Amino acid sequence: MKFTIKFSPMGKRVTEKRPRLLLDIARGAGVGLKSICGGKGKCGKCRVMVNPANEATAIEKKLFTQDEIDEGYRLACRTTIREDTQVYVPPSSITEEQKLQIWGKEIEVKPSPPVRKFFLRLARASLSDTRSDFQRIKQELKRKYNVKVNSVDSKVLNIIGPTLRDCNWSITVVVRGSEIIGVQPGNRTKQSLGIAIDLGTSRIAFYLVDLPTGESINIYGITNPQIAYGEDVLSRINYAGSTRGNLEKLKSGVLQAINMAIEKICKGSKVDRGDIVESTLVGNTAMHHIFLGLPVKQLGMAPFTMAINQHLEIKAREVGLEISPGGYTYFPPPIAGFVGSDHLAMLIASGIERKKGNLIAIDIGTNTEIALKTKERVISCSCASGPAFEGAHIKHGMRAASGAIERVSISSKSLAVNVTTIDDKSPVGICGSGILDGISEMLRVGIIDSSGKINSGYKGVRKIKRGESLEFVLAGKGKREITITQQDVSEIQLAKGAIRSGIEILLEKVGLKTQDVNQVIVGGAFGTYIDPLKAVRIGMFPEIDIGKFNQVGNGAGIGAKAILISQKLREQANQLAKRIEYLELATHSNFLEHFSRAIRFPKM
Amino acid sequence: MKFTIKFSPMGKRVTEKRPRLLLDIARGAGVGLKSICGGKGKCGKCRVMVNPANEATAIEKKLFTQDEIDEGYRLACRTTIREDTQVYVPPSSITEEQKLQIWGKEIEVKPSPPVRKFFLRLARASLSDTRSDFQRIKQELKRKYNVKVNSVDSKVLNIIGPTLRDCNWSITVVVRGSEIIGVQPGNRTKQSLGIAIDLGTSRIAFYLVDLPTGESINIYGITNPQIAYGEDVLSRINYAGSTRGNLEKLKSGVLQAINMAIEKICKGSKVDRGDIVESTLVGNTAMHHIFLGLPVKQLGMAPFTMAINQHLEIKAREVGLEISPGGYTYFPPPIAGFVGSDHLAMLIASGIERKKGNLIAIDIGTNTEIALKTKERVISCSCASGPAFEGAHIKHGMRAASGAIERVSISSKSLAVNVTTIDDKSPVGICGSGILDGISEMLRVGIIDSSGKINSGYKGVRKIKRGESLEFVLAGKGKREITITQQDVSEIQLAKGAIRSGIEILLEKVGLKTQDVNQVIVGGAFGTYIDPLKAVRIGMFPEIDIGKFNQVGNGAGIGAKAILISQKLREQANQLAKRIEYLELATHSNFLEHFSRAIRFPKM
Repeated sequence: MKFTIKFSPMGKRVTEKRPRLLLDIARGAGVGLKSICGGKGKCGKCRVMVNPANEATAIEKKLFTQDEIDEGYRLACRTTIREDTQVYVPPSSITEEQKLQIWGKEIEVKPSPPVRKFFLRLARASLSDTRSDFQRIKQELKRKYNVKVNSVDSKVLNIIGPTLRDCNWSITVVVRGSEIIGVQPGNRTKQSLGIAIDLGTSRIAFYLVDLPTGESINIYGITNPQIAYGEDVLSRINYAGSTRGNLEKLKSGVLQAINMAIEKICKGSKVDRGDIVESTLVGNTAMHHIFLGLPVKQLGMAPFTMAINQHLEIKAREVGLEISPGGYTYFPPPIAGFVGSDHLAMLIASGIERKKGNLIAIDIGTNTEIALKTKERVISCSCASGPAFEGAHIKHGMRAASGAIERVSISSKSLAVNVTTIDDKSPVGICGSGILDGISEMLRVGIIDSSGKINSGYKGVRKIKRGESLEFVLAGKGKREITITQQDVSEIQLAKGAIRSGIEILLEKVGLKTQDVNQVIVGGAFGTYIDPLKAVRIGMFPEIDIGKFNQVGNGAGIGAKAILISQKLREQANQLAKRIEYLELATHSNFLEHFSRAIRFPKM
Repeated sequence: MKFTIKFSPMGKRVTEKRPRLLLDIARGAGVGLKSICGGKGKCGKCRVMVNPANEATAIEKKLFTQDEIDEGYRLACRTTIREDTQVYVPPSSITEEQKLQIWGKEIEVKPSPPVRKFFLRLARASLSDTRSDFQRIKQELKRKYNVKVNSVDSKVLNIIGPTLRDCNWSITVVVRGSEIIGVQPGNRTKQSLGIAIDLGTSRIAFYLVDLPTGESINIYGITNPQIAYGEDVLSRINYAGSTRGNLEKLKSGVLQAINMAIEKICKGSKVDRGDIVESTLVGNTAMHHIFLGLPVKQLGMAPFTMAINQHLEIKAREVGLEISPGGYTYFPPPIAGFVGSDHLAMLIASGIERKKGNLIAIDIGTNTEIALKTKERVISCSCASGPAFEGAHIKHGMRAASGAIERVSISSKSLAVNVTTIDDKSPVGICGSGILDGISEMLRVGIIDSSGKINSGYKGVRKIKRGESLEFVLAGKGKREITITQQDVSEIQLAKGAIRSGIEILLEKVGLKTQDVNQVIVGGAFGTYIDPLKAVRIGMFPEIDIGKFNQVGNGAGIGAKAILISQKLREQANQLAKRIEYLELATHSNFLEHFSRAIRFPKM
């Protein structure tokens, strides 16, 4: 007897014939589950939620609260699967390689994809029935499925005739709106795929989706190869605008990487890329413009004018995307020069249109986009938070990878430092959530004062080599010491100050106070892994109940997927984009006042 | 004081400052006027109709009837132009080089082109007005011209930003439907051009048109380079279908030739090809399919199924046509495997939809398309008339070029033969109208009997060299003798028989008799130059009053131009195409009976 195990949020499915250990099943399916102890039930890292769940073992009862046991939390290394099972993998249990790129809170979307497939058995052409191939298909679509088409993609028209004659007049027709965008021999109605692409400045996430059901078949991430031309958006814009040909270089580089990734994803999922009949792409406005080959020079200087701020629907082949020859790519609209369609997608994924009350949605990255939704209005702004949270401009900063310090605690009494690293490796640096944790703790125990100054005289505080300013030792010994310097603290102050002043100005604009905020949705790679409590403690976020924070993971990617499968959400996104008022912080009269207040730390 | 001379149907315009001889003006303008005597007022070949006309000279009064004088007929070599003048050049006065390709009875069409240009002076982007470039243009189009757009061509979007900033925010926007298909710096609203292409099996005609006024700016013709792969449609189809790559070869060859011709036309007219913002293309179904890269193998065998039989509207760049980057090419629908969109265009140019009574429209070529319109129905068919009328398969046959015999008369009494050649050169062969004339005269004087047999014993009739069958000497001496052979007569019998049986079957199908026909419209290169009287005499056409024949010249080209400038005519053409019933002659039960009767000549 066969049974199926479904992993969310990856959307992976596996079929097994005999009872098998969940950890092994996960490994076989390529689901990157953490496991430090190697499946001995000791480290507790392979924590997942299963449904239905077995009776908890003694070890699980020790590791989990009763609530968690009741919810179905178990260790994958202690769980044998014998029947159809749903497995939810929380972000904390995903290995870092996958973690950065994949995870996002899935939302329920009723699929209404713009593309559908139909199978037809046609009457053979004869001297008494000389209808054209297109007319024959058109009339049968109307008769059998009541579907009306009136045009056909010019490249698809080329293959209709031979396909019909090669497959004995049995054919699958791919219809989008009133256009035939593909034909395939025989009955291929079951293979109808879409791909959603979240084109970030540093990484690109892909969601391969079964269009009729809306289920993810594969999720995959790669590094954006444009990183070779500059880490942040502005350096890419400058590069693209400096010499003729540079824009094309950036564009073709990313396009090639995307096409290779699609090829790889399809191979991995054993599907044909020709069955991908629809695609969506979201990204910040610079990524969006570069991908489309639009001039970006104007995005790099005031007033940061976009070329276009409405959705685009373009043949994938026109933009160079290698999916089904007649397929389209749908680009949701960017909002402003520094608020992209990725932010719009995150808002859609968060369902802010359906939620009541006052909501803040924040997508933290090199640029942090913030939207405030009240009963009447939606206002957005962009803050130049810089790359400090991604580990750049920080002495021992690094991306969230193996060996990066991600959690820090300092004992108030002994000032002993305790760090946790990704994959429990020896510490090699600090990633964004680690530096946030570290500074928050240093502040709590008094090593830093509210102006940001590191106080000498504390254990672990010392002068940096060949310099006057101070630093605090977090971990390591000798050459492998990891410290947080005065300069690092200043960088974080600028970054968190930018975010905080954005929030404050938005609230001020609509006359709301902190306590009026009902929910804060936090997305983005960094936003997913921070501890909201610590972020509030350093004043990055205002003092809002921790229970009101909702970390959604890669909301942009989930939104891109939602927009891929639902025409209703496309329309909703377009309407929302029109409604959103963009606030240019630089032109706001109180900006500097807010900013200079926001870079300070709250008094402990 | 300047004055303008306008030549129709060429559509050429010239401006002069001083009084000048019309023949010289025409030569300077590249209008190929015949002139055998070199402008001495003797040959009468440079006959044109001018308006306003000077007092007729003595020589003109001798050459023209009083009616002609009143209509404004004059000799170009005797006419000095001193003011704005319209000059109509009848086909008989055009030199052969231009004649074949250009002439067509122009029709009056109220222009309603699908593309319009608008000039905008835009507000500069600023921090207090950060609208996207597209939105800025969209809103100003609405405000100033009440024109609503909602999309923009993806390639055009690339140049909007730099264009706006380079030209001080003054811009010309090209709009098609609700799409922006182009932008140009400054005010270029006066340059709005279209090009209509009549893609024939042997030649390609181009009509460069000023879209707002609908006036022709340049008309031009080239040979179809596919001729290297076979003279007739069927050999092209066979070639295209035989090996992979052949279709592409045919397609790219003709595309390259068309693009080069467009370049040449634009240079000649001193216009920028980027100002050509719309194009149309008509042709027989095989030419249409090959140009689009559609499979044609299926067109070469029963049931001759088309890939598509509705109009197509495709970005010109998608089909490889080098006009304005965002421009479209409009392809009116083909009717059947052997009745193409060129025939439809000819029907539109003939205005058959507006005409009352029973009409026959014939487009004579290697394939002859015939349509019969009655009060209720329009039926069309295609006859394989073969290339005899184009001079092929005829012993001394040639295309209509210098030195070709185009008129023949034989004295009933002396049997003396009198021939007229193109350009009055020494005869070097016979073109289609010449062979028709010759056979008709041979029949009239009894050299041929009604079975088609050449009777021996007549002056000029002799045995062909090294053979038994007979031939009749038309002109020339020794090696330069031009004859009509028994074999030639048979070829013409097959050709005219095919046409006649097509006409008879159509009439039979709707229950009409010859005398019920109110008008016969004859088009096509050959159809333009034949003498209908002679065509009736050999039985190619039924016995219909000569006054009912209307020779329209290249109706397909004129129709393509009409469809280019008028959206109303596009719709009319589409409606007509749907109405036309196609009759497959091969499946008609009486076909052979009709054909065997039709190949005979009428009794004299």
